[in-house]
Amino acid sequence: MNGQIGAALAVSTVIFALRPDLESGFSTLWLPLVRRTREPYLDQWALPGGGLPTDEELAGAAARTLRETTGLTPKYLEQLYTFGDPGRSPGGRVVSVVYWALVESDEAALAVVDKNVQWFSADHLPPLAFDHNRIVEYALWRLRTKVEYSRIAHAFLGETFTLAQLREVHEAVLQKALDPANFRRTIESSGTVVDTGQRVAGVPHRPPRLYRYNDSVHAVDSGALEPAIG
Amino acid sequence: MNGQIGAALAVSTVIFALRPDLESGFSTLWLPLVRRTREPYLDQWALPGGGLPTDEELAGAAARTLRETTGLTPKYLEQLYTFGDPGRSPGGRVVSVVYWALVESDEAALAVVDKNVQWFSADHLPPLAFDHNRIVEYALWRLRTKVEYSRIAHAFLGETFTLAQLREVHEAVLQKALDPANFRRTIESSGTVVDTGQRVAGVPHRPPRLYRYNDSVHAVDSGALEPAIG
Repeated sequence: MNGQIGAALAVSTVIFALRPDLESGFSTLWLPLVRRTREPYLDQWALPGGGLPTDEELAGAAARTLRETTGLTPKYLEQLYTFGDPGRSPGGRVVSVVYWALVESDEAALAVVDKNVQWFSADHLPPLAFDHNRIVEYALWRLRTKVEYSRIAHAFLGETFTLAQLREVHEAVLQKALDPANFRRTIESSGTVVDTGQRVAGVPHRPPRLYRYNDSVHAVDSGALEPAIG
Repeated sequence: MNGQIGAALAVSTVIFALRPDLESGFSTLWLPLVRRTREPYLDQWALPGGGLPTDEELAGAAARTLRETTGLTPKYLEQLYTFGDPGRSPGGRVVSVVYWALVESDEAALAVVDKNVQWFSADHLPPLAFDHNRIVEYALWRLRTKVEYSRIAHAFLGETFTLAQLREVHEAVLQKALDPANFRRTIESSGTVVDTGQRVAGVPHRPPRLYRYNDSVHAVDSGALEPAIG
């Protein structure tokens, strides 16, 4: 760690939530973006974020800038990757430590929405400021890889859920329809969920069973995305 | 990405290789460390690394500082995590982007070893400079988690290997003995390795079969540790 050379440091955050696609009605991944109010990239959409003050933890700066712009305070906010290509920002090198989070729909509904903060479908983004399209693509890739071997889908669901709700999360993340019977067999044989013995209230005829995650199964991830470190 | 505030940026690298434990003879994880030749932490051991020049890619800086100090040029060098606690470096904040790599024993044997570069057993480290003990602990944790669901062990092996060699890698990483018959059944049923039809040369009586990784199986990771991005 000799001879460090100063560089501008920033944090940015990718937040995913499930929302219905406006055309198909199926759940898809959405994320909030913030309109830039200064150059460079004036008026273009960008990930929530900002510069890193000298005395603030990286995760703290990510949480604060996210809260200030969108009003969101996700339970899980974890480091995704650090982007530092010399040419990624005009007018001087900026290294961005990127965090990410998944939020439940109820939580997502609390986000600020105005002319400078809006939700976009993750697979239909406009050209974003800086290399933020590439950052979102990387986050999507990580999410789609992780959903297959971890309980990451849990972050989108409440404490209990139906198998149909769990399947819907997998379908939204993987962008493909899954056969309900096959999905049920796969999930049940994995042992990752437990039948709570309860059923959805207020459904008169054959209400669906409610499941919860099986905490006794070793989770690859301890949090939503990546284990907390420390 | 407004209002970025300058901070010192550095890169460091954790390199793991398998070497026999000096007492037990069993394979264990080792890593090369570099003795610091200046303050702070003069004469203490530290991860290979250095400051980030303005025009160098993060991964390029990690590879260069690693090569300059240890002579190693790993095939896979991937981003692990960015450490940026305000108090982690005396005399001014330093944010370190940490890379990691796994190297085969043949490659590790080419590393420079002198009074300022030495290999240490990953589980028996002296107090290192800065927060480097914590960084190594985090890397070990990630490695031990990943070996269970990815083909990460491959990075320690050549193109073909015996099941005993593969088991030895898992044993070294997980720090526990694995039953050979159970391990064989688990690996064979996973479909992740393929019998090449060849056997180890030069062994007259029942030479062990040689296997290779099954490239048609979806790999969670495309490289050694983390998929390349870009």
